[in-house]
Amino acid sequence: MIELYHCVDARSFRALWALEELGLEYRLHDLPFPPRILASEYLQLNPLGTIPLLIDGEVRMTESAAIPQYLATRYGPSPLAVGVDEADYGPWLDWLHRAEATLTFPQTIVLRYTRLEPEERRLDQAAADYAQWFLSRLRHLTRALSDGRDWLCAGRFTMADVCVGYALLFARTLNLEHKFSPEIQAYWDRLSARPGFKAAQVAQAAAASAREEIA
Amino acid sequence: MIELYHCVDARSFRALWALEELGLEYRLHDLPFPPRILASEYLQLNPLGTIPLLIDGEVRMTESAAIPQYLATRYGPSPLAVGVDEADYGPWLDWLHRAEATLTFPQTIVLRYTRLEPEERRLDQAAADYAQWFLSRLRHLTRALSDGRDWLCAGRFTMADVCVGYALLFARTLNLEHKFSPEIQAYWDRLSARPGFKAAQVAQAAAASAREEIA
Repeated sequence: MIELYHCVDARSFRALWALEELGLEYRLHDLPFPPRILASEYLQLNPLGTIPLLIDGEVRMTESAAIPQYLATRYGPSPLAVGVDEADYGPWLDWLHRAEATLTFPQTIVLRYTRLEPEERRLDQAAADYAQWFLSRLRHLTRALSDGRDWLCAGRFTMADVCVGYALLFARTLNLEHKFSPEIQAYWDRLSARPGFKAAQVAQAAAASAREEIA
Repeated sequence: MIELYHCVDARSFRALWALEELGLEYRLHDLPFPPRILASEYLQLNPLGTIPLLIDGEVRMTESAAIPQYLATRYGPSPLAVGVDEADYGPWLDWLHRAEATLTFPQTIVLRYTRLEPEERRLDQAAADYAQWFLSRLRHLTRALSDGRDWLCAGRFTMADVCVGYALLFARTLNLEHKFSPEIQAYWDRLSARPGFKAAQVAQAAAASAREEIA
């Protein structure tokens, strides 16, 4: 069975949501954040200490925006993947990468220098620079959605929406939601109304609650 | 014909190298860095002002680690792609994403706060934090190469090596090469000896030289 190591609302949510959208069976391992400090035994499984870690037989993956593509194609065919012969194949790959490299990483800098570092190491300028950087890149998402489309690629919900959707979830936890354009707010409302999204939320809450009872 | 907008030794080098490895025809447009300031007419083509921009008929892509996968699969079949039925398919996708999200983005923070920002906005702490962050993630690359393999996935050179190889090229421009492990140094030597790598270097030098003559 597929195993997923996860922290609540962290990047591994992409993998969890993807599993739920595909209806695959999996075992969820909930960890406290950050696991490299609060669950150091995890370093034996993943020396980087990062989440997600997905284990599928001999396959081990740690990149949150690669896992949804892997699952939708390895366990496909699925409409959640865009095929190489479809017109939107290139844009689909582009959105999968943009979701993490361009829309999520800058937010991790904001998180680090506003909340994770001790007071004396916080950097207001770096946090402001990368909040601004994120918001300027988010305009590309507004432009893409401004033709009235519901989903990013191929006229249907795909793993690109899962991956970009997580970047929006993260932005909400950083209180950046008030900067969302109307197009992005409406897109977020569609994403968070999906049964797969809600099932992932229920699953992570149950796993976190079970861990807390044991602890 | 495929068109690529590029700056010398910037992330678009991945796309250029990928085109050369595949032997595809393309037209290279060289831009000064950063193009959003030094070639503002480019914003009409790519409102983000980022490079690369790849145009292939109706397809437009801007994510440097997505373009090699696109080219190798759209213009495949090619041994530079790892197929969905191969054992290393998941790790291949993982390396494509890791190359940019985990091994390149942190370096852009170092570049920004040591060289691009005006003196009064430079942040030694942020630059040092993310140089360290990059080097700690690079250990994962050393571990992967420590079994004696020449290339990252599937027992052959693939687009994962192109994408990770660019992260090493970038690290060299930031003077981080002296931190490379012997495994990574030897891997870099193999990468930079490839005819496709050298052809990409020649192509970018010729395009930059032609632009400078016009200017």
